[in-house]
Amino acid sequence: MPQISEKGKILPASPIRKLVPYADQAKKRGIKVYHLNIGQPDIETPSIALEAVRNMRLNVIEYTPSDGNHTLKTKLCSYYNHLGIQIKEEDVLITTGGSEAILFAFLSTLNEGDEIIIPEPFYANYTAFALMAGATVKTVTSSIKNNFALPPISEIEKKITPKTKGIVIINPNNPTGYLYSKEELEALAKIVKKHDLYLYSDEVYRRYCYDGLQHYSVMNLEGIEQNTILFDSMSKRYSECGIRVGALITRNKEVLAASLKLGMARLCPPALGQIAAEASLDTTDEYFARVHQEYVERRDFMVDALNQIPGVVCPLPKGAFYSIVRLPVDDADKFCKWLLEEFEYNHQTVMLAPASGFYHTPGLGKNEVRVAYVLKKSELKKAIETLSVALKEYPGKTEGK
Amino acid sequence: MPQISEKGKILPASPIRKLVPYADQAKKRGIKVYHLNIGQPDIETPSIALEAVRNMRLNVIEYTPSDGNHTLKTKLCSYYNHLGIQIKEEDVLITTGGSEAILFAFLSTLNEGDEIIIPEPFYANYTAFALMAGATVKTVTSSIKNNFALPPISEIEKKITPKTKGIVIINPNNPTGYLYSKEELEALAKIVKKHDLYLYSDEVYRRYCYDGLQHYSVMNLEGIEQNTILFDSMSKRYSECGIRVGALITRNKEVLAASLKLGMARLCPPALGQIAAEASLDTTDEYFARVHQEYVERRDFMVDALNQIPGVVCPLPKGAFYSIVRLPVDDADKFCKWLLEEFEYNHQTVMLAPASGFYHTPGLGKNEVRVAYVLKKSELKKAIETLSVALKEYPGKTEGK
Repeated sequence: MPQISEKGKILPASPIRKLVPYADQAKKRGIKVYHLNIGQPDIETPSIALEAVRNMRLNVIEYTPSDGNHTLKTKLCSYYNHLGIQIKEEDVLITTGGSEAILFAFLSTLNEGDEIIIPEPFYANYTAFALMAGATVKTVTSSIKNNFALPPISEIEKKITPKTKGIVIINPNNPTGYLYSKEELEALAKIVKKHDLYLYSDEVYRRYCYDGLQHYSVMNLEGIEQNTILFDSMSKRYSECGIRVGALITRNKEVLAASLKLGMARLCPPALGQIAAEASLDTTDEYFARVHQEYVERRDFMVDALNQIPGVVCPLPKGAFYSIVRLPVDDADKFCKWLLEEFEYNHQTVMLAPASGFYHTPGLGKNEVRVAYVLKKSELKKAIETLSVALKEYPGKTEGK
Repeated sequence: MPQISEKGKILPASPIRKLVPYADQAKKRGIKVYHLNIGQPDIETPSIALEAVRNMRLNVIEYTPSDGNHTLKTKLCSYYNHLGIQIKEEDVLITTGGSEAILFAFLSTLNEGDEIIIPEPFYANYTAFALMAGATVKTVTSSIKNNFALPPISEIEKKITPKTKGIVIINPNNPTGYLYSKEELEALAKIVKKHDLYLYSDEVYRRYCYDGLQHYSVMNLEGIEQNTILFDSMSKRYSECGIRVGALITRNKEVLAASLKLGMARLCPPALGQIAAEASLDTTDEYFARVHQEYVERRDFMVDALNQIPGVVCPLPKGAFYSIVRLPVDDADKFCKWLLEEFEYNHQTVMLAPASGFYHTPGLGKNEVRVAYVLKKSELKKAIETLSVALKEYPGKTEGK
């Protein structure tokens, strides 16, 4: 039997999805599983998008252009311009979800053995995309002890080696909800310029910043226009994760041209998803105001409820819809599996994402999990109640710290 | 400005799509462009698929499982079983088009520097996916002189080195329409087994074999069950290229597990496309009979009409809907560009894919193009008439051979 590849061997399974088979088994046993593991909101997709799909007039579902439909790109530029971010159509490549934007950017800019720096914990799938491109991830670590504040920019600069090719930021951060200040971004821009690095910025959760804080985009940082590469996605903004439409946005024409060649190889992004995406861009402020309010309420409820459980620590996230939570358990990986395999409370259990997969440094996040506050409050309440019981029953429970 | 990657630099632009900007310019000048460059049929998508999309009941377009919807996988297995190919649900990973199946299989099985052997000419995008995985393409060459018959299997075996990890076949072949016989496949299986290689088989055009010839799948080859990896796609079978739904199918559990980890990283294949795909699997035999007949008529018409043009040679393809055609021109790349940039006949021109991009050996296919007979006969007729005039006017015309 021929061998699989080294990449196939060492690629970690996604911490968000690797326990799915256990959840499926639990469901087969009649157990209700609350999914706090994945950023799959229960918020309705804007009706304008659903209607666009239901009214689609195509008789042949054809390939679209490799860089996406012209009309979608135009509307996406208007959306950006409205936000005060000047983007031209020629700066945009529509991708199959934000995921593909990451893959294309890495393949277009990184050579085998190149290094990228990412503040950890970070969205776990970046590790997979870096591995696919043959690049090595280096990290600076933020900690639950100080609400996952970004380490001083000087710490990032210390990690730069001759092999370093770029810095990745996720802003607001998935999984910590950390929001970068304009000052931090300007400090970052200085070292990006000084060392001539790429600055990859994942702004997928831009729309969900809380407590009156404003999002600042790397696309508005001056002097590093050729260095910045933006990852965007419709999934989270419009609660339409399944459409698989995102974008790679950069003013660097060489990077865009290389990415477009990769895009031609896969022919086009999904045509039906692009119909939904284009319509979504007309989503009203009223929808966002409502959804924003909903997330704030869920966040406040969840953070409060979790912090009331003895030994649990849940910081208040400033954006996105995740938090890293410390649990009084010996090993969160074991605990998450135990929840699905052995535990139930009134025929219910909870699925969480072990945080170890969001850290790159081995051993970190061992007693932490990522929770997504993507369920309505009544469900969140039951989920947290169930978790609370589980933490009393779990054989590997600890005192917490 | 930071450098782009080596892969970004050397990746060739797709011969199918690289001339799109010139076609767009021609259209802006009011010229009708006949697209023979791309396998985008004008055949209607089965109404059952269109209706499924229009009637979709989702209120939240959620992520699907990373390996695709269970119901789609089940129906796809039934489709295969009906064809006499025994596939279980656990052998199937639903992918974002057949393209992603190729990428995942290569990343899961090939290391940097590994070699794969592909009979040329072949579907150009394999070069891009091999490059993304860091693998090197070696070829055996088939020629228009003998209707692109596969070289003797012994020629393939001669290309095997210690670095060879697999053989790719496209059956029926894109771009030549060549259909592999059962005997050829059995001979191939012997060397695959002897050298413990992967056999990657692209059977996307399985449904379109002509002249009474039967398709034989590698999944029915005995003794190499752990070596075979099948690429499938709904795009061509159901004329729904834009839905971006395909499949990676293998009984090798390690390959499937590695591919699923890649699949988790990109979260899921398109949800809306999967709705169309699932419905498509109920397409009636009547639809296929009609479409099959249509392609046979188009093929016969096109091959005959092209061969009547002085200096043009067009073999009769046995499957799929492409042919490699030799033209009496100095350089098909120049000619294809000239058609879009400088030529028009009654405000019409033709877009063709230069064949050089489908050969891996430099210099081959210099006076050949790939044509796709995906337009209705009345359009094909006008396209070929236009091409005929162009061949008279083209400054680099030759006598042909």
